[in-house]
Amino acid sequence: MSTKPMRQQVEEYIVELQDTIVSAFEKLDPNAGHFKRDSWIRPQGGRGQSCVFPPSSSDSDASSTSSILEKAGVNISVVHGDLPPAAIKQMRADHSSLPYDAERSLPFFAAGLSLVVHPRNPHAPTVHMNYRYFEVTDPNEVDAEGNSKILAWWFGGGSDLTPSYLYEEDAVHFHQTLKDACDGHSPILFPAFKKWCDEYFYIPHRKESRGVGGIFFDDLCDAPHKRLPGESEQPDPSRPSSLEDIFKFIKSTGNAFVPSYLPILEKRAKAESTEHERRWQLLRRGRYVEFNLVYDRGTKFGLATPGARIESILMSLPETARWEYMSEMGSEEGSREEVLLKVLRTPKEWV
Amino acid sequence: MSTKPMRQQVEEYIVELQDTIVSAFEKLDPNAGHFKRDSWIRPQGGRGQSCVFPPSSSDSDASSTSSILEKAGVNISVVHGDLPPAAIKQMRADHSSLPYDAERSLPFFAAGLSLVVHPRNPHAPTVHMNYRYFEVTDPNEVDAEGNSKILAWWFGGGSDLTPSYLYEEDAVHFHQTLKDACDGHSPILFPAFKKWCDEYFYIPHRKESRGVGGIFFDDLCDAPHKRLPGESEQPDPSRPSSLEDIFKFIKSTGNAFVPSYLPILEKRAKAESTEHERRWQLLRRGRYVEFNLVYDRGTKFGLATPGARIESILMSLPETARWEYMSEMGSEEGSREEVLLKVLRTPKEWV
Repeated sequence: MSTKPMRQQVEEYIVELQDTIVSAFEKLDPNAGHFKRDSWIRPQGGRGQSCVFPPSSSDSDASSTSSILEKAGVNISVVHGDLPPAAIKQMRADHSSLPYDAERSLPFFAAGLSLVVHPRNPHAPTVHMNYRYFEVTDPNEVDAEGNSKILAWWFGGGSDLTPSYLYEEDAVHFHQTLKDACDGHSPILFPAFKKWCDEYFYIPHRKESRGVGGIFFDDLCDAPHKRLPGESEQPDPSRPSSLEDIFKFIKSTGNAFVPSYLPILEKRAKAESTEHERRWQLLRRGRYVEFNLVYDRGTKFGLATPGARIESILMSLPETARWEYMSEMGSEEGSREEVLLKVLRTPKEWV
Repeated sequence: MSTKPMRQQVEEYIVELQDTIVSAFEKLDPNAGHFKRDSWIRPQGGRGQSCVFPPSSSDSDASSTSSILEKAGVNISVVHGDLPPAAIKQMRADHSSLPYDAERSLPFFAAGLSLVVHPRNPHAPTVHMNYRYFEVTDPNEVDAEGNSKILAWWFGGGSDLTPSYLYEEDAVHFHQTLKDACDGHSPILFPAFKKWCDEYFYIPHRKESRGVGGIFFDDLCDAPHKRLPGESEQPDPSRPSSLEDIFKFIKSTGNAFVPSYLPILEKRAKAESTEHERRWQLLRRGRYVEFNLVYDRGTKFGLATPGARIESILMSLPETARWEYMSEMGSEEGSREEVLLKVLRTPKEWV
């Protein structure tokens, strides 16, 4: 059992996971050139590395390019700073161990990996993943090794798939891989986090989901969780609830990314596609932009944070998106576009 | 002097203005096909007409099309309904004549024209305009002609220009035309509304304006206006403050649209352009999407309103937008892209 502080364990893990994932994409498309590795320092405390594709853009038309990926980013960030009283007050809803004092800020630490991959082929789905660890400490209580006392900690994250054209077997494979990763820790996790994912990635003004789902969760710690069944008094004894056990669960889901997505990408990237299918893909990318800019909490929080790294936050946006007034695409009964819309309007249990 | 109720006068005016504007665009590009006229009924009360270009989209690549406009919408809507107490409470900040009762909704009437035009040529600027009239009435006090007593009324609107490449003479012409329209009513209007425009169409996370400005105002009525100088006690005697006089001002600015913009469009639509310039234009369109989805009050309000007509609200979005991670475009000193960014970072007095 490791005796390193969790913040250090998480940092080491996400550095390694970022490298594994980026290498897997680069191996899949060796002619496409490497991701650009872009390290940055946060003046207020912390650092990060963005790995982005394409490494640079040119004036030539996007359509002339033959790479598997159109736009992708795999980011890690490890930051720390002071949490103002207003933010602490809000967090107390899920973390009652936090002391609130209107005059007192508290140090926080946050480390996470987030990725969004938009492939070029309309038959290959977009994927998103994010895992993060958050810690609030007491600056006045420091142990013999110099580590501050942890007042509250939690993990959050998830992974979800956004196809333009539905391949049921892809949705099943993606969900099954995530379910297996979750079930290795407790059977209650996957059903709860799949449901949460369907609820979170929803575009109210379009009355449709962003994609076909996956898992989503936040505030997972050693306290009862309102999203998990039967946890009004204490955590379900079957599920990971200690710092170390939840971290093991996070590693299982993070490690599931490559096997959940790369086989799908490899298969669909080679498919023939038409101008019609490309147009539909770009309309769907418009919906992705709508969700991320209007509803996504992380994006909204990031854009409103002074000094935030805007380029990392908006890395999730596609290279190209399209809007048509009253587009007829998707309305033809029995069309492949309509098949997707039906599933987005009524989320499905894939496994 | 007309004795028709203002709501009827406004409706007649915007119907006529919409026709004038759409005809002017159609005349400028006779080979492009007509705008699509799309009338709609609001089940909860009211109607509207969207005039949109292109009339339909096809699978063929956007680059193969030769029309002057890429995407445009000129919408009118005339709607009525009940304003819930919470909305009335908010409005009282600017309209103290409104009675507030936590139990009581009040009838409202709203009529307006809004347009967004995205031309194809990167040298031709995008333009936006919106004029609207809002009325709250007392359902219990009805006069001999059957008209409810007006408890509060106001006009709002404006017009602004968003180029991808700066032509100073275009910015000057656009502002001069608007200034002349304003100055015919009072010299205090243009300076105040130009400033408001620069403040409103600002993208905080990019630290830049959406475009090169124009005019913007709201809540213009017979009460002192906090944006107009010296109006702490009563309206400046030089400016229009009666219902009829403000409507005359609105008509002057609405009528100024065609002369403010069409000559610019006609000139720039014929310019030669490169792939490099097209790419920059699409990046700028990405910024337009960011402003409209993240900050624009009308869009945010519309998306959050149950039963709102989403296709009309999102008509403002461009056909195509582009995002690049850490794009180098605009960073080369002395480039035409940098010239635009400089002006967007420090708004300028054009006239």
